[in-house]
Amino acid sequence: MASHVLQSHPRATGLAEETVKSHQADCEIVLHGGWFCPFTQKCWVALEERGIPYKYVETNPFNKDPALLALNPKGLIPALTYQGKPLHDSHVILEFLEDAYPQHKPQLRPTDPYNAAQARIWVDVINKYIVPGYFRIFHAQTPELQAAAMSEWLKYLQCFADKIRGPYFFGEEFSIVDLSLTPWIIRDWILVENRGFNRENVSPKFAAYCQLIVNRPNVLKTFSNKECYEAIYALHLSGQMKSSILEAIKSGRPLP
Amino acid sequence: MASHVLQSHPRATGLAEETVKSHQADCEIVLHGGWFCPFTQKCWVALEERGIPYKYVETNPFNKDPALLALNPKGLIPALTYQGKPLHDSHVILEFLEDAYPQHKPQLRPTDPYNAAQARIWVDVINKYIVPGYFRIFHAQTPELQAAAMSEWLKYLQCFADKIRGPYFFGEEFSIVDLSLTPWIIRDWILVENRGFNRENVSPKFAAYCQLIVNRPNVLKTFSNKECYEAIYALHLSGQMKSSILEAIKSGRPLP
Ligand SMILES: N[C@@H](CCC(=O)N[C@@H](CS)C(=O)NCC(=O)O)C(=O)O
Ligand SMILES: N[C@@H](CCC(=O)N[C@@H](CS)C(=O)NCC(=O)O)C(=O)O
Repeated sequence: MASHVLQSHPRATGLAEETVKSHQADCEIVLHGGWFCPFTQKCWVALEERGIPYKYVETNPFNKDPALLALNPKGLIPALTYQGKPLHDSHVILEFLEDAYPQHKPQLRPTDPYNAAQARIWVDVINKYIVPGYFRIFHAQTPELQAAAMSEWLKYLQCFADKIRGPYFFGEEFSIVDLSLTPWIIRDWILVENRGFNRENVSPKFAAYCQLIVNRPNVLKTFSNKECYEAIYALHLSGQMKSSILEAIKSGRPLP
Repeated sequence: MASHVLQSHPRATGLAEETVKSHQADCEIVLHGGWFCPFTQKCWVALEERGIPYKYVETNPFNKDPALLALNPKGLIPALTYQGKPLHDSHVILEFLEDAYPQHKPQLRPTDPYNAAQARIWVDVINKYIVPGYFRIFHAQTPELQAAAMSEWLKYLQCFADKIRGPYFFGEEFSIVDLSLTPWIIRDWILVENRGFNRENVSPKFAAYCQLIVNRPNVLKTFSNKECYEAIYALHLSGQMKSSILEAIKSGRPLP
């Protein structure tokens, strides 16, 4: 199903299309990603924020091509090659970019060890609770289940929002914590239009934070035209999406 | 219930008791841990392997004392203080010790960025699949469910074992990958005696690997007398254990 939608929307559009076009030259770093994929966007924004040279290769993860499986045995995107050697998982990739390119400023992981540890604690909250919560709202197909999933999601977001120092999570600097939430913030209009989500219901402070995040130039530069996402999200909303993430949610297992 | 067992077994015994006694002086690092806790053991072994000075404070996580909640709002151990500032989560703590004490050799996270990323990929496999799988076997209370949980666990262990370069996961050096599995290897006799587990059923290579791990002096130095663990595991085996981990497993949520 998802693969079918990707046949009619195979490539990035809008601002993201320009970004893809300007990243076709061979590089030490190749990002194998998908224009629609929130996990890809985390890595993509990091590369842009830090000015690390990279080549972007649009990759459909739903066909499980041997070429993708060679990069990531889980068959998921993003995958990255560094000097031809493969890596996967968006968080692992973010940490790798910090470790491998310390000279590219700004670093997005705090350079002080204690603050880096705090960043990892909050990235973990996002990856373990907020991200699955987002998908769980789509998966819920009755109003009761949707309301329960939404109220749980609001609870997690509030817990996060309470700790935002402002303007960004840790204060003045945009970090891997903000970045780890970014793709879900910029994709929240689907929940606004279809599931009654409202940033203000988390808190006015959170709404202001979101506004700042979604207007960052590099976030916009890695985002396609809204109607393309809507074609994918229509599958999610009607419970027809088939993906490793939804399989994990249905069977009560951690996201892959 | 667990709290009740900890009343009769409040402290480390055997070799671990000696280790605790020799780490009572004030230090920049204080490990708030539990003698019985596998997550604590990861951090404890790391401190010992790297010769980082620390103070050990035995901490019961089941009472949710305000003192513990101040260190970790989740109320779980291990928690660590560094110059009085709190951190939690065993993996976050392992990364922190690498970042904060680079001069203490050997480092357990590969120093090459690409290899560090590979290490994080495998730590994630352990934390997302192997660790919950271990607890899921206890939670299963019928022979059918136990067999299903065991066969799933063997599958994950085999996938891991296939990649062991030998003697350790990455070759000659003991790393955070080995360490992240260590507490569950040294605690596997409970599954051998009660659930028919056998290391050889994973593979002979895995059995040899386990043998090496459980004989490391610092692993033994942080392990109490077996009968003390048996008192705790009796609760697990009979389905009477109450813990955040088991709540997460029952409700199909990621481990806290
Ligand atoms: N934990 C992974 C998750 C990646 C992921 O789930 N990617 C999706 C696309 S957004 C995918 O590849 N799906 C293919 C599938 O489900 O088969 C990460 O952070 O990179
Ligand atoms: N992800 C945590 C898990 C820690 C954990 O679950 N610790 C257990 C003891 S082994 C605990 O504190 N349990 C108390 C409870 O469940 O209430 C880590 O890696 O440190």
